[in-house]
Amino acid sequence: MSSHHIVRDDQEPALIIANGAACSKELLGQLLEWSPIVIVLDSAIERVLELGIKVDVLLGDFDNGFDPHLYAAQQYPMKIVHTPDQDKTDLEKAFDYLITNAIPAVNVVWATGKRADHTITNLTNIVRFRNLLKIVILDDHSKIFQLPPTFRKWYPKGSPISLIPVGVASGITTANLKYPLDNETLTIGYRTGSSNEALEDGIVTITHTSGDLLLMECFD
Amino acid sequence: MSSHHIVRDDQEPALIIANGAACSKELLGQLLEWSPIVIVLDSAIERVLELGIKVDVLLGDFDNGFDPHLYAAQQYPMKIVHTPDQDKTDLEKAFDYLITNAIPAVNVVWATGKRADHTITNLTNIVRFRNLLKIVILDDHSKIFQLPPTFRKWYPKGSPISLIPVGVASGITTANLKYPLDNETLTIGYRTGSSNEALEDGIVTITHTSGDLLLMECFD
Repeated sequence: MSSHHIVRDDQEPALIIANGAACSKELLGQLLEWSPIVIVLDSAIERVLELGIKVDVLLGDFDNGFDPHLYAAQQYPMKIVHTPDQDKTDLEKAFDYLITNAIPAVNVVWATGKRADHTITNLTNIVRFRNLLKIVILDDHSKIFQLPPTFRKWYPKGSPISLIPVGVASGITTANLKYPLDNETLTIGYRTGSSNEALEDGIVTITHTSGDLLLMECFD
Repeated sequence: MSSHHIVRDDQEPALIIANGAACSKELLGQLLEWSPIVIVLDSAIERVLELGIKVDVLLGDFDNGFDPHLYAAQQYPMKIVHTPDQDKTDLEKAFDYLITNAIPAVNVVWATGKRADHTITNLTNIVRFRNLLKIVILDDHSKIFQLPPTFRKWYPKGSPISLIPVGVASGITTANLKYPLDNETLTIGYRTGSSNEALEDGIVTITHTSGDLLLMECFD
């Protein structure tokens, strides 16, 4: 039996489309394939609708004269979530929205590129949501997520793996990396673990005992 | 009296062209206008020569079978600086080169975009060179530099100003910002000062007593 009716499993990751540089249509297509709940941030809606993407939630502070209801008519039923709090970024507010709605995981695109302040803030602020939401940020060159205290994943030999501490991360020990770490400390700005790689085909293990540590799988 | 002979003043900022996303030709043209010493990192040389830019120094680890001497013939006299140290990025090695050669200031382009690990490493590692080299990173949306303990600059009202701590920066006090700080602490990943702005036309003052603090002037 087949059906055109899409049954969504809210355990699947949602998709947030932020307001930075657009990614490739291929990456967006892969992420849309599983019909995630799609949340678009603020004025990015214009670029998203041009791509013909069905949007579930439009979220933002809607300042600078932006009228979300103009777009609601085109996208019925699209939910509009007005989040005027100036102490948080729209991306943080979208994470809060997902947590409130008991959605456990999210992929984020268009969160990098363009303004460097937004890029660095978007990449590093995900650590606040540790234990609350599983967040993966993706662009055409990168896949970024926060590491749990013990992380294990199979990688092909030579896979680029960068360890970026958000602040100071300590007690870092790795197995199957080309440049191994043995109970070491990484400090943003002073000592990071950028441009490491998998030593052999197989499981890479990365453990740390304190601090916030991002893993970036990046390629040129 | 006019002359086609260019007399360089080594007090002028050098220009490093790194290996991330290219910036606009307009930005590059502005930076080249004063005939800076031009240093190109590794395989970016291919993209730079296509733009017809005269290169003074080609610097990198030249791995992956890259042969810098192929390009030296096209760019005589171009100096080739081989820096095989795997513990530093090519950008850090270029900063070291400038310091060794007593050049006090540098503008950096193509250091952002593409790989997120390179972007975040390039932006945050400039704090290691505090007091050694005046570094400004530029792209089409951003101008980024590290703040001295006391910073004063005239800005038009509404100019976007983001304060990004590299780690923890404390004792931050501002004047003439829309969201003022009064002896406050910013912590990367947890509390940053992104998306602030000049309150009125006039001098903005930002002081801090400890830690590393970046200022980003960014625009969409």
